[in-house]
Amino acid sequence: MTKAYEKPDVSVDVVLLTLAEKGLKVALHRRAKEPYPGSLALPGGYIHADEDDSLEDAARRTLQDKTGLAPRYLEQLRTFAGPGRDPRGWSVAISYVALVPFEELAAVPSTVFEFYSVDDIPALAFDHSDQVRAAVERVRNKSSYSTLPCWLLPGKFTLTQLQHTYEAVFGESVTRATFRSRLGIKVGDVQTGEAVDEAGVLIATDDYQLGNQRPARLFRADKLGLFKRASW
Amino acid sequence: MTKAYEKPDVSVDVVLLTLAEKGLKVALHRRAKEPYPGSLALPGGYIHADEDDSLEDAARRTLQDKTGLAPRYLEQLRTFAGPGRDPRGWSVAISYVALVPFEELAAVPSTVFEFYSVDDIPALAFDHSDQVRAAVERVRNKSSYSTLPCWLLPGKFTLTQLQHTYEAVFGESVTRATFRSRLGIKVGDVQTGEAVDEAGVLIATDDYQLGNQRPARLFRADKLGLFKRASW
Repeated sequence: MTKAYEKPDVSVDVVLLTLAEKGLKVALHRRAKEPYPGSLALPGGYIHADEDDSLEDAARRTLQDKTGLAPRYLEQLRTFAGPGRDPRGWSVAISYVALVPFEELAAVPSTVFEFYSVDDIPALAFDHSDQVRAAVERVRNKSSYSTLPCWLLPGKFTLTQLQHTYEAVFGESVTRATFRSRLGIKVGDVQTGEAVDEAGVLIATDDYQLGNQRPARLFRADKLGLFKRASW
Repeated sequence: MTKAYEKPDVSVDVVLLTLAEKGLKVALHRRAKEPYPGSLALPGGYIHADEDDSLEDAARRTLQDKTGLAPRYLEQLRTFAGPGRDPRGWSVAISYVALVPFEELAAVPSTVFEFYSVDDIPALAFDHSDQVRAAVERVRNKSSYSTLPCWLLPGKFTLTQLQHTYEAVFGESVTRATFRSRLGIKVGDVQTGEAVDEAGVLIATDDYQLGNQRPARLFRADKLGLFKRASW
């Protein structure tokens, strides 16, 4: 079937967020090629129709090729498009959000990414600043009523680490009691090792983190838990 | 710049929802052309790179061309894509949700659309059933904490009409007191004509609906109001 219209370019961009120095950071790389050589930008790439089985596949292939990363949390954000966002012509960018624990980024060569605070984003190529802002809004909103911040932590974490993660996402410090109340965590349950949060998805493991203070139980989360109401 | 990859087809599809016979309905048309001639499908069309300034423009142009409609509420839903959704090859469909008062559909020739209950969708072409399901989930979820259902009504409406609209969206009947409590509407405020809902976006007009009972004040909503918590 012959088509009279010109097809737009289609790419997938990934807003890769991590937690470093007590703040939410976005991973940016410096573009080598036209357009905007030398500019900071999100990792991304064109859809490969002969290779990709889905948009998520394309996002994962792009990250894998550029960084070796395979994020546990990857979510479609929104699609940005139009005649003005790329000087090469009408283009469509399907934007994804990835959450990656900072520990996993240690395997990525240090020349690949620069990390910037999401609240102080430099000028970026294309409409990538808009994508970062939309991603941060989505992550903060969703974190206010779910266990999303768990995906910024390694597979097992203490409740104190989880508290610091929520604090970093929202840029707000709270007492331990306030934190536990917001998540519906009951101290007694922590001791028995039952699922302790209101949404029932924080799972106590038999492992402990040892340190200067008394051993802290390690928890994990296998699926995203939704709270009945925004708690943050 | 030469590109080695093959570009996917890019279209915009619109899940057009309206309220009829006390239920939420989706507008479907019967395809005349390949692929899937004779099948029911969502209105939609390819991006015209020479004509469209944005994805929303493309969605509006498609609706305007096929139906003459210009919906007041149009929101990007999600992007569906892959090698299997269209027999013509790898394709990308950016899905939009439109809310249209049934009264506005009176201007559309009756041969254009068939209306089906969103809870009893027939087999549709492409992945359009998935798009309808995702749209209904989005609309019900958003209606539970916002004034979104106002956009299924004409510009001015009574509180009773608004109650019936919420009831139709959720498929649940409630008493007038329950409805007003959920939306934070205070009866005293209705009399004074102040904005009466918790979110402060229901605006009392000076107009009334006359009927068998005592005149009912007409309200309007200029912007989407968000409640502090899910109330439905």
